[in-house]
This record gives sequence, structure tokens and C-alpha cells, in this order.
Amino acid sequence: MLGRFEFANPTKIYFGKGAIDSLKGELERYGKTVQLVYGGGSIKKNGIYDEVLFALHAANKAVVEDGGVMPNPTADKLRDGVRIARENRVDFILAVGGGSVCDYAKALSVSVHCGGDPWEVYYERFEEPACPIVPVGCVLTMVGTGSEMNGGAVITNPERKLKIGHVFGSNVMPKFTVLDPTYTFTVPRRQMVAGIYDAFNHVCEQYFSGEDDNVSDDLAEALMRSIVRNSRVAVKDPENYEARSNLMWAASLALNTLIAKGKTTDWEVHMLGQAVGAYTDATHGMTLSAVSLPYYHYILPYGVKKFKRFAVEVWNVPEAGSDEEIALRGLDALDGWMQEIGVSRNLTELGVTPDMIEGIADATRVMDGGYHVLTRPEIVAILRASL
Amino acid sequence: MLGRFEFANPTKIYFGKGAIDSLKGELERYGKTVQLVYGGGSIKKNGIYDEVLFALHAANKAVVEDGGVMPNPTADKLRDGVRIARENRVDFILAVGGGSVCDYAKALSVSVHCGGDPWEVYYERFEEPACPIVPVGCVLTMVGTGSEMNGGAVITNPERKLKIGHVFGSNVMPKFTVLDPTYTFTVPRRQMVAGIYDAFNHVCEQYFSGEDDNVSDDLAEALMRSIVRNSRVAVKDPENYEARSNLMWAASLALNTLIAKGKTTDWEVHMLGQAVGAYTDATHGMTLSAVSLPYYHYILPYGVKKFKRFAVEVWNVPEAGSDEEIALRGLDALDGWMQEIGVSRNLTELGVTPDMIEGIADATRVMDGGYHVLTRPEIVAILRASL
Repeated sequence: MLGRFEFANPTKIYFGKGAIDSLKGELERYGKTVQLVYGGGSIKKNGIYDEVLFALHAANKAVVEDGGVMPNPTADKLRDGVRIARENRVDFILAVGGGSVCDYAKALSVSVHCGGDPWEVYYERFEEPACPIVPVGCVLTMVGTGSEMNGGAVITNPERKLKIGHVFGSNVMPKFTVLDPTYTFTVPRRQMVAGIYDAFNHVCEQYFSGEDDNVSDDLAEALMRSIVRNSRVAVKDPENYEARSNLMWAASLALNTLIAKGKTTDWEVHMLGQAVGAYTDATHGMTLSAVSLPYYHYILPYGVKKFKRFAVEVWNVPEAGSDEEIALRGLDALDGWMQEIGVSRNLTELGVTPDMIEGIADATRVMDGGYHVLTRPEIVAILRASL
Repeated sequence: MLGRFEFANPTKIYFGKGAIDSLKGELERYGKTVQLVYGGGSIKKNGIYDEVLFALHAANKAVVEDGGVMPNPTADKLRDGVRIARENRVDFILAVGGGSVCDYAKALSVSVHCGGDPWEVYYERFEEPACPIVPVGCVLTMVGTGSEMNGGAVITNPERKLKIGHVFGSNVMPKFTVLDPTYTFTVPRRQMVAGIYDAFNHVCEQYFSGEDDNVSDDLAEALMRSIVRNSRVAVKDPENYEARSNLMWAASLALNTLIAKGKTTDWEVHMLGQAVGAYTDATHGMTLSAVSLPYYHYILPYGVKKFKRFAVEVWNVPEAGSDEEIALRGLDALDGWMQEIGVSRNLTELGVTPDMIEGIADATRVMDGGYHVLTRPEIVAILRASL
């Protein structure tokens, strides 16, 4: 059943090989000064930086550089970026990179015109911002977060061991996003599979809630099937355009709010993973894969009907045996796929040690939209089982 | 494979029972004078008219009435509506009804500020209009066309035996749409199932093109499964909110451009159906259902791989036998479902007589995005097989 919801996603997508040639025209719709946000500099090696700069110059923009965005963008980096934006009175923020870069750009966009310390403002804010927003555009170079088509952002405060995500409304969504699958060809395999698992888990977080008949669940299964099928091709043949293009578009659709419609949604795996990330700086997608199976095994009895459907519809598990047996074979299939593509299946390899468990549990937000609301001892038990 | 595409759908959706309470706030974003467009007056019997008028008055609007939009809106009606809009200098068009009413509102929106005869302007126009657009909002009362979330419109010229559809870009899409599934509870069964088949066929038109791996096809299958499953509930229990809500949202997603991404798309069934509509004024969805099976049987040999996938993924046909045998069993399943919900399976019951066939063939536009480009004799043969 679809209860009440609102849906609005104004992000304009330019998809496909060569889509960067739409960048100039989009930039011309905005003001003179552009804050060019990017990460560790891989875009300077693979030529994407040059293509973006060509469009910026062709559109006659003044470019303010803001590179060095780290995989888990920090409160200090946010402060630094806001200072750059204010000093240069930027009119537009162009994010060129993966989810962290897009997230950082959106966190910037809502902070520039608000007073006070950017981290404190960001940390406190759960509603649509009241101060003016600096518009954002994205050129995506890595698949996974879906940040390129939603209003979400995650910022980490390492001193306070906090990794905080907010989801803003449609005003904060990128005005446009360039999605060229060939830009993802050179992403290292470990980053690629972490992104693939991140996208897959976004679907799971929305799917594993409710037990009614909901068209969003049908769409979720379609995305999961596509991600699994195409990931198997991409890990063997990273420059397979068909696989990379389907993964790129599926990942955007996985978190552009579409498949959440009519769902309560869970997000507990993300809360566990983000708490791990605050303690270890581990790759986001790997923190999710490392805690997923212990979590799903734990909550399976509370949502057995849906886990059975997951087994049958996503993994083609034959409908033989009890619902719980079928459901468990679905999780086995998920485990097999995780091994096949090579994502982390335990927290130990991400640097988590038993003495960190209590702290990570402290940092884990408890969600109430899934099949079971975790207690503190349950969180600790799931984290221990993930070691 | 997903080739180059652009995607932008700015329509804001307010979904669910009671969603009409969002109407006032949306109306306040636009100018004073609202052209209130509706159909034959059923909304005055079921109370929807009163709810809409309440919101219009609460938003302090001047209301210009424009009722009587017929199921296949005509060129003369378009001329009349443009006259009303110009005389009253309307700022906004509010469509309350089904797809015909929404289509008419969008055809109006692009014609008001263009000079010349509205039909001639509409007929000639295939590109984004250059003259200013009057913004449109929709309150949907019938499920099927998807007009509530796209830039399409179909207008009929009975004198010239033409039924012409145009698809405009995102500027012409409704600014907002109110989707309350309870508004569809009182739609007569024949209209309901015609709308359901229309929505299903929209998915088919996009699905039956290409043979590659495309995430849009996975999403299309998800929508088809949902439509079939929920239609079976709705025909038995018209006030089943779960079924009606899934049908309503699936129908919007079926034609909001999402599942066309990376596809060439066919639309030949619609071209055949619209030509029938121009000759008979028959219900749109019924014209599609009447020609579908003869058309699909005819083109099956050219796209057997996809028709096999359709059989397996949408209809759960076992994968036994040759590809063609499996594919044919899929069409049998489609036929069975059409009988079950009670849509037209031949043109004779829609009033088509053998002497009309040549004229309908003349009026049928030939598309080139599907598995086979029809010749004139093939069109005649398919129409004869549909009698």
C-alpha cells in the first residue's frame, strides 16, 4: 500500500559517453564565480579535470579551486570550504568526483549563507535550511552513493567520532548531474565494488520495511537484479560500457527517493556502517558490507516474509522448504555474491578491534522504520558478530 | 546498454488519501486567475469538484470554468479553451479529471500565447514551444494515461480524421499533480480497465525495443508485474486502497519518461489505436487492447528474445521449449489477463467495420523504434486480424 507521500526530483540528468558536452550550457544558467570541488586529484590524471575546466572557461566562469575532499569529508574541510565560498562570493558549486565530493558540495551549499560555525549549523540541522542555498551541479566519476540525484550529505567529525548524514529536500538536490559511464572505467576495483555494494544496500534499506504490496518493492527488486547482474560483468571487464552504464543509472535511481515512496525504510545498516566509519575512516561501502549479513540474520525472524520474497525475486531461490529456509538461502546467495565481487565481510579487516565495539555502539543511531528496533545489547551483539 | 539520454521530471507529486489538502499551498505559488478544466461533470457528483473549489477559494483565486472536455479532446474544444484563456488572461490551468483532461490542459498551455489557429499551431508543432507556457497543475481522477507526470498531449480533429499526439519537454509537464487513489474508486469498471490496459501498454511500448541489457527493462517488468497483480484485485474490489494506490503510482511511472531511458521505444500500438480512435471515438485504452495481440503476434519473430523474456519475467512462463514457444505462451498469458479484466480484444466491438480499414491504415503513423517497421500491407493485415 502506498500511504501519503510527496515526490519531487528536479535534478536534470545528462547521461552517456560524451555527456560532458552539456556542461557548458548548464553552467551558463548560473552566476560568474564557480567553486570547483574535487577529491584527491585522480581527475587530473584521467583527463576529466581538463574536460571540466574546458567547459568552465567556455562558459566564461571565474573558477575558485577547492580540491582535496577526502573520502569521508570532515568538519574541518567543511569549515575550510565555507571560508573559500564566502571569501570569493561564489555563485555556484561544481562537484567533480564521487559521492563524498557531491555530499561535501551539498553540505557547503546549505552552510555558506548561514552564520555560525559550519559544523555546528550542519550538525543541528534536520529540516530544510532557511538561509539561501548556493546551487550545486555534479560531474560524477564514481558510482555508489546516489548523492548526484538527491538532497543527502554525510559529514564526519573525527574528534567527536561522529559521522552525520542529513537528507535535505528538493531545493538542495543538484540542479544537474553529468553521468558518463566511461568516467568510471579507471576507478580502482576496490572502490568500484564498494560503490556497487553501497548502491545495492541503499535498495535493501528501503526494501526491508513493510510487508504489504507496494510497487516500490517491485522497482527495488528490479534495481537489485540489475546491480547484481551487471556487477558480475564489471568486475571481470571494467571497461564494459553496458555493465558500467546500467550500474551508474541504477545507483542513481537507488537513492533518488523514488523507491522509498510509501515505505517507512530502515537505514540501520547505514547507521552501523557510519559509526564504524567515524572510528576507522574505512571505505563507506565496505563498512556496510561488513555488518550487513550479521544484521540481516539477526532481523530475519522479524521480517521473514520479505526476506523470503528477497530470496525468490532477487536471487531466484526455488520456493522449496519453509519460509525461513528459503529466506536463509537468500542471505546465502547475498553472501556468495559479496564474496564473488570481493567486498569486506567482516569488520576486522577494516581495522575494527574488540575494544572499539562499545564506542561504535555509542555512535550508532537506532532507527525505527525496519523490521525490528535494535536495543543497545543487540547492536553490540551484531557488531561483535561482524568482527 | 544505456546510450545518451537526458532525464528531467520536475512534476511535484502529492500522493495519497487526503492529498488534496496540498492544493491550496501549490495554487498560492501562481497568479490570480485559474482556468478550471474538467470533463463531463462526474466530479460534481462525487464531491471532488467541491474539494477543488474549496482550495481555489481558500487560495483566493478567480476561477474561470472550462468544463465539458470530452474523452478524445477535439480541435474545436481546443479552440474554445484558448479563447477562454485569452479573454480571461488566465495565469494558471488546473486540470481535474483523467488523461484527456490533463492532455487538453497541456495542449491549451502551449497554445494560449501563440498566435494563429490553435489546431494548426498544435498540429505543426513537434518541438518545445517558443511562446510562453501557461503553467498547469493536475488533480487526477482516473488512472491510465500518465499525462499527470509528462509533457504529452493528444488532440483529435474529427473532420480531418486525425488524432495527433505530441510530447513536449519538461517545461510543459504539470508543475504539480495531486494523486488521491480514493478519487478513482467511483470510476466505472469499463473506464478503469481501459486505463489499466493503457498504462500496461505504455510499458510495453517502451519495453519492446532493443535486445540488450538495460536497467529500464528491469524497471518496466517491475511495473508490469505490479499492474497485473493489482488489477486482479481492483476488478474484484474497486475500493481496495492498496490495489488502487499501486495502480495509480505505477501508471504515472509508466509514462513519466523514466523507463524510456536508453530505449528506442516503439509506440506502434498507440499509432494503430489512435487511428482507430480518430475513426470511432472509442475509448483509448480499448483501442490499444483490441490491436495489441495481432500486432505482437506479427512482430514476435523479429523480437523473439525479448518476447521470451516478457513471458518468463512478467508472466512466470516456465522456460521449457523453444524460445518462440515460450514467447507465444507469454502472449497467451497476456490474452488471458485481458479476458480476465475485461478489455476489448477486437475492433468490431468498438464499431470498426471492414470498410474503415483502409482509412484507419491511412491515419496510422509508422514508427521505427520497435522490432519491425510496418509496411502499409502489414498495417492493413494487422487491422483486419483485429476485427
